[in-house]
Amino acid sequence: MTGMFTLHEDPRSGNCYKIRLTAALLDFRLELKRYDIMAGETRTPEFLGNVNPSGRIPVLQINGTDGIRYLPESNAACCYLADGSHLIPDDRFARADMLRWMFFEQYSHEPNVATLRFWLHFVGEPQLSPHQKTQIMPKRIAGCEALAVMNRHLETRDWFVGDCATLADIALFAYTHVAEDGGFVLDEYPAVLSWIDRMRALPDFVPMD
Amino acid sequence: MTGMFTLHEDPRSGNCYKIRLTAALLDFRLELKRYDIMAGETRTPEFLGNVNPSGRIPVLQINGTDGIRYLPESNAACCYLADGSHLIPDDRFARADMLRWMFFEQYSHEPNVATLRFWLHFVGEPQLSPHQKTQIMPKRIAGCEALAVMNRHLETRDWFVGDCATLADIALFAYTHVAEDGGFVLDEYPAVLSWIDRMRALPDFVPMD
Repeated sequence: MTGMFTLHEDPRSGNCYKIRLTAALLDFRLELKRYDIMAGETRTPEFLGNVNPSGRIPVLQINGTDGIRYLPESNAACCYLADGSHLIPDDRFARADMLRWMFFEQYSHEPNVATLRFWLHFVGEPQLSPHQKTQIMPKRIAGCEALAVMNRHLETRDWFVGDCATLADIALFAYTHVAEDGGFVLDEYPAVLSWIDRMRALPDFVPMD
Repeated sequence: MTGMFTLHEDPRSGNCYKIRLTAALLDFRLELKRYDIMAGETRTPEFLGNVNPSGRIPVLQINGTDGIRYLPESNAACCYLADGSHLIPDDRFARADMLRWMFFEQYSHEPNVATLRFWLHFVGEPQLSPHQKTQIMPKRIAGCEALAVMNRHLETRDWFVGDCATLADIALFAYTHVAEDGGFVLDEYPAVLSWIDRMRALPDFVPMD
């Protein structure tokens, strides 16, 4: 029997891990349907037609009594799961500030920190296209800038928003804690390292693998 | 006397326009504080220290009785302004689906459609760096993919989520309706063109300039 939620994912993806971590902290069970993105398994006509026209994972599948619905975009899926929970602040400004860090993650962090991890750790530098190779240095600089913004913010706070972990922390944790796979040096960001320890100590925390 | 909201913005930025359009549709007044991003006015120590450590606009400044707060990230600022209004769906799935399109906008649309507009319309192709020039074609392809995803979605719907305009439409409208400034051909996306007309017909709509 299929449960309430099915996650279409690749276990190497930090974007997928965000959703698994959110579900674990909320004690939701996820069925996992795994794809190998390196083998193009999310670019098949079936996946594009039924699951996500963008050909990307993760997608959260919601198996309701009134039918199946699909929700792409990792941070939107986390918001769906955590709706009404302690992972989303009650206060109007804090809730928007949480989204602020989640948009920062997708715009300024993930395209740099996650992409370099994917290229250098999974694809391998010799296999990169000439165009990709020219992007390593700009992405290194922009990724370091994003980590520095996080570090400055965390120098005076335990969590990104308010006084407990929210989806902002989950979204930023996913690729930050494995940033060294992409050649980033986390020792340069000591407040980030302390925050990573706090994340790992959360009740019901699950690791990426 | 300062009003409730001050928007730190550059009038040429679609990200800033999203917030002005949201405020107009909700009949909120915004004080405008204008910056010239081409002249580095958002990279001054004062701006970085007080307004946004990322050096980016827009930033929504909220002038409360308990002090001033700053909210960077255009889509987060729209969520703050529209909290509890008709621009955010009541239904849990629809609300997450709205965020799905807003994350799509920041990840798959803006870095391509908006960046090419900035480079080709405001900076000028001869002034681009060699690295930027090599990115024109990949950004053209990715921007066309994003517009094609939008067009397929709108072929069977009037609005991105549900049966009226939400923040998803506002976020995607901002850079789509001026995509031709970046060399995109909107005639190739007829469902997008019809949706642009519907957006312009909204009560209290305001244009970008």
